[in-house]
Amino acid sequence: MEFTISQVAELLNGKVEGDGSQKVSRLDKIQEGSPGGISFLSNLKYENYLYTTKASAVIVADSFSPSKDYNTTLIKVEDPYIGFTQLLEAYEMMIKEDKLGVEQPSYMDPTSTMGENGYRGAFSHIGKNTKIGKNTKIHPQAFIGDNVTIGDNCKIFSGARILNDCVIGNNCDVHANAVVGADGFGFAPQADGTYKNIPQLGNVVLEDNVSIGANSTLDRATMGSTIVKKGVKIDNLVQIAHNVVIGENTVIAAQAGISGSTEIGKNCIIAGKAGIVGHLKIADNTTIGANTGISKSITKPGNTLLGYMAMDIKDFLKSYAVFRKLPELQNKLKDLEKKQ
Amino acid sequence: MEFTISQVAELLNGKVEGDGSQKVSRLDKIQEGSPGGISFLSNLKYENYLYTTKASAVIVADSFSPSKDYNTTLIKVEDPYIGFTQLLEAYEMMIKEDKLGVEQPSYMDPTSTMGENGYRGAFSHIGKNTKIGKNTKIHPQAFIGDNVTIGDNCKIFSGARILNDCVIGNNCDVHANAVVGADGFGFAPQADGTYKNIPQLGNVVLEDNVSIGANSTLDRATMGSTIVKKGVKIDNLVQIAHNVVIGENTVIAAQAGISGSTEIGKNCIIAGKAGIVGHLKIADNTTIGANTGISKSITKPGNTLLGYMAMDIKDFLKSYAVFRKLPELQNKLKDLEKKQ
Amino acid sequence: MEFTISQVAELLNGKVEGDGSQKVSRLDKIQEGSPGGISFLSNLKYENYLYTTKASAVIVADSFSPSKDYNTTLIKVEDPYIGFTQLLEAYEMMIKEDKLGVEQPSYMDPTSTMGENGYRGAFSHIGKNTKIGKNTKIHPQAFIGDNVTIGDNCKIFSGARILNDCVIGNNCDVHANAVVGADGFGFAPQADGTYKNIPQLGNVVLEDNVSIGANSTLDRATMGSTIVKKGVKIDNLVQIAHNVVIGENTVIAAQAGISGSTEIGKNCIIAGKAGIVGHLKIADNTTIGANTGISKSITKPGNTLLGYMAMDIKDFLKSYAVFRKLPELQNKLKDLEKKQ
Repeated sequence: MEFTISQVAELLNGKVEGDGSQKVSRLDKIQEGSPGGISFLSNLKYENYLYTTKASAVIVADSFSPSKDYNTTLIKVEDPYIGFTQLLEAYEMMIKEDKLGVEQPSYMDPTSTMGENGYRGAFSHIGKNTKIGKNTKIHPQAFIGDNVTIGDNCKIFSGARILNDCVIGNNCDVHANAVVGADGFGFAPQADGTYKNIPQLGNVVLEDNVSIGANSTLDRATMGSTIVKKGVKIDNLVQIAHNVVIGENTVIAAQAGISGSTEIGKNCIIAGKAGIVGHLKIADNTTIGANTGISKSITKPGNTLLGYMAMDIKDFLKSYAVFRKLPELQNKLKDLEKKQ
Repeated sequence: MEFTISQVAELLNGKVEGDGSQKVSRLDKIQEGSPGGISFLSNLKYENYLYTTKASAVIVADSFSPSKDYNTTLIKVEDPYIGFTQLLEAYEMMIKEDKLGVEQPSYMDPTSTMGENGYRGAFSHIGKNTKIGKNTKIHPQAFIGDNVTIGDNCKIFSGARILNDCVIGNNCDVHANAVVGADGFGFAPQADGTYKNIPQLGNVVLEDNVSIGANSTLDRATMGSTIVKKGVKIDNLVQIAHNVVIGENTVIAAQAGISGSTEIGKNCIIAGKAGIVGHLKIADNTTIGANTGISKSITKPGNTLLGYMAMDIKDFLKSYAVFRKLPELQNKLKDLEKKQ
Repeated sequence: MEFTISQVAELLNGKVEGDGSQKVSRLDKIQEGSPGGISFLSNLKYENYLYTTKASAVIVADSFSPSKDYNTTLIKVEDPYIGFTQLLEAYEMMIKEDKLGVEQPSYMDPTSTMGENGYRGAFSHIGKNTKIGKNTKIHPQAFIGDNVTIGDNCKIFSGARILNDCVIGNNCDVHANAVVGADGFGFAPQADGTYKNIPQLGNVVLEDNVSIGANSTLDRATMGSTIVKKGVKIDNLVQIAHNVVIGENTVIAAQAGISGSTEIGKNCIIAGKAGIVGHLKIADNTTIGANTGISKSITKPGNTLLGYMAMDIKDFLKSYAVFRKLPELQNKLKDLEKKQ
């Protein structure tokens, strides 16, 4: 499907600078643009590519003025990233094929139901007394256990596992091989050094608009629920232990881990590989840097933390700057001692 | 199913303080208790909830005396956590439905056998010459390869993969999407900078009473066996590399990783995200803190370690306390130098 | 199958010291050797086992001279590790059974094709318009989406997911439960604190001779491709975010993570649990130590880095050595201050 640059500009409420009559049919990264493609320039780190790109058009900010010659057509919009996202969405609508109906063989217990306009892929498994809403897609080889509830407009991707009794809201995505509702890691130490299983009888609740990344694991509560509130976005390979509660619109990046019974506030950002020990409370709007370890509750909202044992980010960076010079510091101290 | 509080107290060998005739039918978290529920109070961090809970009964320690008014019935027992665990077990017996028989379609090579009282879920796959004991449940979409041995009373959850030649003892749980027996990461560097696969011909052995968490990976040995001894409990997203040996009753929390050929002693505790490099020996009863890096063998048993590069935990905490004040320390040193 | 030690020595171009007429039929670890087995001694850390092993033969280096008595036959070769690897390969050829043909039930859309000499295991799923080369094995319960291309001689293990539009070269292994092509983690923050999905319309490209470990995740590009170049070896539980590029023959160990749009050079070594933030460039031949955090581009090739925030490895080790003595340093400083 082809459009003129002017047509695209119109869709985005943007202004054309250059030849708007050229045809475009593809979205390109600015580094790799070629004729027929549209790119965007948002992060000015990539500005230099504008002057060499072969993309037919580049979406830029209204406020942007080029500092060198360039060989493309500009589409000026208020926020080029948002503009580009709009194009991605329009493009997705055109190319993404919607799966519908039932592929065979697949398995659904007769006590379970699916709403209209759904999809069950081959080798998917749906247990007993499970209710699935409308427009929800259960991809091939996904597992849905017994007594599960899943809302409308969800995508449960191939190999995702939603175990017994879990509850999933509307508009949720559970990506490939994620596990929702495995047993919490609970063992009671015995006098002889062995451990005894503590039954894990609760469930996991995902509210609306939640996304769970590939190969992430969310354990069911010992009793009650592990709760992921609405709008939470969780990346790949993240561990959420039993009885954790995650507040609305919190974002958790890849390989982060949250230990049992910790409650995370809303609108937090938890970067990759960060770890939070159990039974803590993290205030709203907290930002936790990559690989940061949190071993105490955060009571004041709005802070940014970093460090092997978390500190205010500015303090940590200052301490780490001195850490880099510790051998020098030690030598200075020795010199002073000698002079005594 | 309903019981009176007195009946529950009798089951737990406990004493009732308050109205024992009320009916209870549910286990609640103390924070969320409501009429008809029983909660427990073990960690006194949660004591305040006792004074506001709406649960009909709370299990507490014999030694506990409330410091405020409360509005529930107490069941006093020696150890409230153990008491509560007993209730969880009784409750589990009542509610957990036991899967039995064979769901279709499923695949088992005719050369393989399963003991009595087992379960094979839909889309499960069992290869050639595999022997599975009695009361063992192979959940839907689980994979069991060729020449595998699995004992009695095991649960292999949906999407778990037990690859060729692996051996699993009795009473083991392998949770959803865990992988037991993938090839070890072994490559021989070649003169031209490329790497050549080193065949990984060994297997993985799980002894009795082992639990493997969701999405964890245990690689097969290059030759011989990667061995997980009896009573070991492994959490989610843990990596166990080829030829590792893990001693009895060792517990490994989520996202920890153990590199090739390392031998871990028995009764160790390895916290979340800890990492241990290859070819080391870790003494018995070692405790390794969260996110700790171990790059040398631990020869003395019974120590607790912490740190980016592990130190005795007390020493690490002292050093880290000074780290937090490093900019101040640097300023003091500068002052001293000026005064010279 | 049995061979004499002399026959094995001949295969390896080695010299026998001792009785070459004994029969061997098995490969053993030197710690566990027993009659009929062949072991090897490469890492001299294990030398002591040579003097106690019961293996019938041990492969050692030409240059090796024993310092004690031993009770086995030596096979001397230039490089015992390479020699042993050759034996492993020969052994693998003998014992590994080649899967061929189609197990039922399995699912392949009629618009897709597979080359000769392939294998499709039970419950594997192949979507629309997908092309798979010859000698490629799709193991049971693997998922191959729509519009996928896979080359010759690949192994896609049980539960691996290759999502729509991805491209895999020749001689690639994708281990169990790895996910290639899940959506990148891209969300646009909205004014009300919620996040909006950014469509992820690109794909993942694995060039030839790539290996992806169990439960690793490689996200598709927002647009364009996440690219893993030829000869790259990736271990288990590794996260590769959208739009990452990994250079030829780079090796990435378990639980490492690479954030979006970062470009890794060729012949790099990234150790376990290392993390690299987004939008960076890492020069060729960089070695990144275990659990190292990289937050800036590495422009000079050939360096080795270590640390919570990466430093030159030697500098980091010096600083960390002083870190261990910080309480002592602080005391010395206090003493000096008192003397002022």
